[in-house]
Amino acid sequence: MDEKTIASRIAQNRDFMKSSFGREAVVSDQQKLLPQPPLVKEAQGGKQIPLTRDFSQVVTEHDYVKLLEERVSNRFYADTPMTLDQLAFLLWSTQGVRAIRGKNYAALRPVPSAGARHPFETYLAVSRVEGLAPGIYHYLPMEHALELVKEQQGMAEEIAACACNQKWAAKAAVAFFYTCVAYRGEWRYSVNAHRVMLMDVGHIMQNLYLSAQAVGCGTCAVAAIQQRRTDALLGVDGKEEYTVYMAPVGVRDESRNATGTQKLYADV
Amino acid sequence: MDEKTIASRIAQNRDFMKSSFGREAVVSDQQKLLPQPPLVKEAQGGKQIPLTRDFSQVVTEHDYVKLLEERVSNRFYADTPMTLDQLAFLLWSTQGVRAIRGKNYAALRPVPSAGARHPFETYLAVSRVEGLAPGIYHYLPMEHALELVKEQQGMAEEIAACACNQKWAAKAAVAFFYTCVAYRGEWRYSVNAHRVMLMDVGHIMQNLYLSAQAVGCGTCAVAAIQQRRTDALLGVDGKEEYTVYMAPVGVRDESRNATGTQKLYADV
Repeated sequence: MDEKTIASRIAQNRDFMKSSFGREAVVSDQQKLLPQPPLVKEAQGGKQIPLTRDFSQVVTEHDYVKLLEERVSNRFYADTPMTLDQLAFLLWSTQGVRAIRGKNYAALRPVPSAGARHPFETYLAVSRVEGLAPGIYHYLPMEHALELVKEQQGMAEEIAACACNQKWAAKAAVAFFYTCVAYRGEWRYSVNAHRVMLMDVGHIMQNLYLSAQAVGCGTCAVAAIQQRRTDALLGVDGKEEYTVYMAPVGVRDESRNATGTQKLYADV
Repeated sequence: MDEKTIASRIAQNRDFMKSSFGREAVVSDQQKLLPQPPLVKEAQGGKQIPLTRDFSQVVTEHDYVKLLEERVSNRFYADTPMTLDQLAFLLWSTQGVRAIRGKNYAALRPVPSAGARHPFETYLAVSRVEGLAPGIYHYLPMEHALELVKEQQGMAEEIAACACNQKWAAKAAVAFFYTCVAYRGEWRYSVNAHRVMLMDVGHIMQNLYLSAQAVGCGTCAVAAIQQRRTDALLGVDGKEEYTVYMAPVGVRDESRNATGTQKLYADV
């Protein structure tokens, strides 16, 4: 890409980040009274694994201020497998559905979403989780259950490959993948949906960081993914539904904490 | 905008959300060994207001799981002013700097940021905060202090105007504005910076929601802003630095809770 193209693309991308309110005269499908798409992607008939909503045992650090003080990106994971209950908390706290508003108009979740559209689906590549065969799973937020997409060995190598061959990712117990079902946002916001959907996946990821910390795990978000390989692994078409963000997660390896930190405050 | 243009824009925007790793052959300024931009926007010589880092009194709900269960977008605020200490916690927990890594290479904050670039600045439109004159303030994360940009009356009307004339926003005690200093991300990621910077501001906003909840306040994020008016109000140029996301915040009005919720689980 030459310098002139780069400069023009940067100007264009900066504009994409700005609010287009009042600039884009579009009538959305919602304004045209077209039918609303489903709130979530429904179960596909695979084996379902119910998840607990009792987190009293699994959350080991409850204090929100402490979680904020301790949040770091963690690329070192112990060999210890994760438990299904740890996973249940990570799923619920990021994309669980607490309630439905209106006549199936919107789902209420622990994260906000522009226009309450919640356009993301959660998939897992399970490598080392107690009670789960290695493979790909899809989270069913209404049921708070996992659905098996396919059993598959070699998940460690697949996770690292999706993360553009970052080797540390292979040690994760599980990788979270957030796919966007684009029409859910476009129905309401048309061409203005995509900017806010990127913000939405950031809301989700922040909870994943804090929740991982709360159950003795760690994570490091990865935005640079191998798009085609990842979409193929999860079984999404890459057009109507495509991967946007991923996060390998594992039990924290406390012996390998981050170093090289120059402290700003005496009390940190 | 005609149907054909909408369809082509939607296809383009969906592509923007996907990872461009391996697709975009660009050499970033960091790769060219060009100098790194400053980690934060420096103080401009205005009056500074130091902020507390002792949150023991101000955080009234410490339990992370409870905060997740209770998180809602809150558009009703009490007349009670917010305290400076409540504000201090909201600022620290979203964009505070806990430590510096390397030789001023990166700041460590309670939120992750792609490549640890942290490209956002925080501005406040203060309407009703004890000890602060109404007006515009800029957060100095290294000093954990506010800098007065300008005293100005009529903040309630300004906040509502920035939020595209949403009347509820006028009742906020303060509005948070996140501006993007684009080159901080572009230095490392060139044309690939903007997708991940939108995710980054989502990380920040999620903490603002949880933290507002933790100090007895409420918020509702607003992505549809009046771009020019907001940039002008904050005093940013709208080119190198521009507003991306805003959030009116106020003391929660407990008498006006959300209604119309159809419960999914008996225990929620």
